[in-house]
Amino acid sequence: MVLSANPTTIKFLQQPTSQQWLEQALTNLDTILLDHSHCERKAAGVALNLMFRYPSYTKLVRSLTAIAQEELEHFEQVNEILERRGIPLRALAPPPYGAGLNKQIRAKEPDRLLDTLLVCGLIEARSHERLGLLGAHCPDLELAKFYRALMASEARHYGVYWLLATTEFERAVVDQRLEALAAIESQLLATLHPEPRMHS
Amino acid sequence: MVLSANPTTIKFLQQPTSQQWLEQALTNLDTILLDHSHCERKAAGVALNLMFRYPSYTKLVRSLTAIAQEELEHFEQVNEILERRGIPLRALAPPPYGAGLNKQIRAKEPDRLLDTLLVCGLIEARSHERLGLLGAHCPDLELAKFYRALMASEARHYGVYWLLATTEFERAVVDQRLEALAAIESQLLATLHPEPRMHS
Ligand SMILES: [Fe+2]
Ligand SMILES: [Fe+2]
Ligand SMILES: [Fe+2]
Ligand SMILES: [Fe+2]
Repeated sequence: MVLSANPTTIKFLQQPTSQQWLEQALTNLDTILLDHSHCERKAAGVALNLMFRYPSYTKLVRSLTAIAQEELEHFEQVNEILERRGIPLRALAPPPYGAGLNKQIRAKEPDRLLDTLLVCGLIEARSHERLGLLGAHCPDLELAKFYRALMASEARHYGVYWLLATTEFERAVVDQRLEALAAIESQLLATLHPEPRMHS
Repeated sequence: MVLSANPTTIKFLQQPTSQQWLEQALTNLDTILLDHSHCERKAAGVALNLMFRYPSYTKLVRSLTAIAQEELEHFEQVNEILERRGIPLRALAPPPYGAGLNKQIRAKEPDRLLDTLLVCGLIEARSHERLGLLGAHCPDLELAKFYRALMASEARHYGVYWLLATTEFERAVVDQRLEALAAIESQLLATLHPEPRMHS
């Protein structure tokens, strides 16, 4: 069965990205590229922060070291493309997506760990989906190829976060919490943010 | 002249590491290794935080991406050695050194940037010096070899921080501030911290 080859995408994301987001992104490729750079740096930062917070979780530390390294590599790659295209690095106001998800993370352990892993997994899953859309529809062939090249890593990343969650928590607990968080994740993207962003 | 081949070490550090530190380290190699792991992760975190704070400084972003990647590689290498030796990862109370240096960072820009770059450079220079001492005196030959292999990177890192400082600030301003911070850095290490640490 073809669908079961990639069941995690279906499990993680409750709603697919809208046509409007894709149109907004394709008409603002420079801004999307700049925001993408910020996303990769943030992804590395989140992985590193998690290691800081749970320094004795050997498996988590090992997996997240690899993720942080890959995100820094992506960051470097996006920045090289920005430079070649003469797009200067600059700060961008983040869309409400990240803060909206972080608000869902419960403060008390071990809930905090579970929620953080699942929120990270959801963001990676959404990145994977959107890079796939850009890879399939971007008229700029260099960019389209680049987006397709990154897709596989982001898919692996949400797999890692999912695996860490199920290693540390019971499967039923993970499934239930994931369903709740995934509903919120899709809800946060239901209204298109006016500024073009990777997660608008 | 041989000495001038490595003038930055002399310029950065006002006082050499004491014999007592080396003795303390050599009699507590496991703890030093564990603390070293934390140092490498922190070094990656500091580089990443700087990029977060100055996202439009292209040269800084590029140099610090490379540093963060190398520190994560060192982190991975130390953790592999810890694992092979059966030393479990765990949190360690940091020595007063880092907080003592951070307290010197002035809050207002552009002072904050200058101070941060110089503090990072000083920490790298001290790491370079101490890895050199461990590389020369550690009776465990595998560890001694590992420490010698890392020395060169840390030397490059303080070179990078110094270069960034002199790119963004006038040389005389950098020199003057470095002298003040280096005096404090040596002062912070003048009394040996009772717990063995890389920067005790
Ligand atoms: Fe990535
Ligand atoms: Fe990722
Ligand atoms: Fe290092
Ligand atoms: Fe370093």
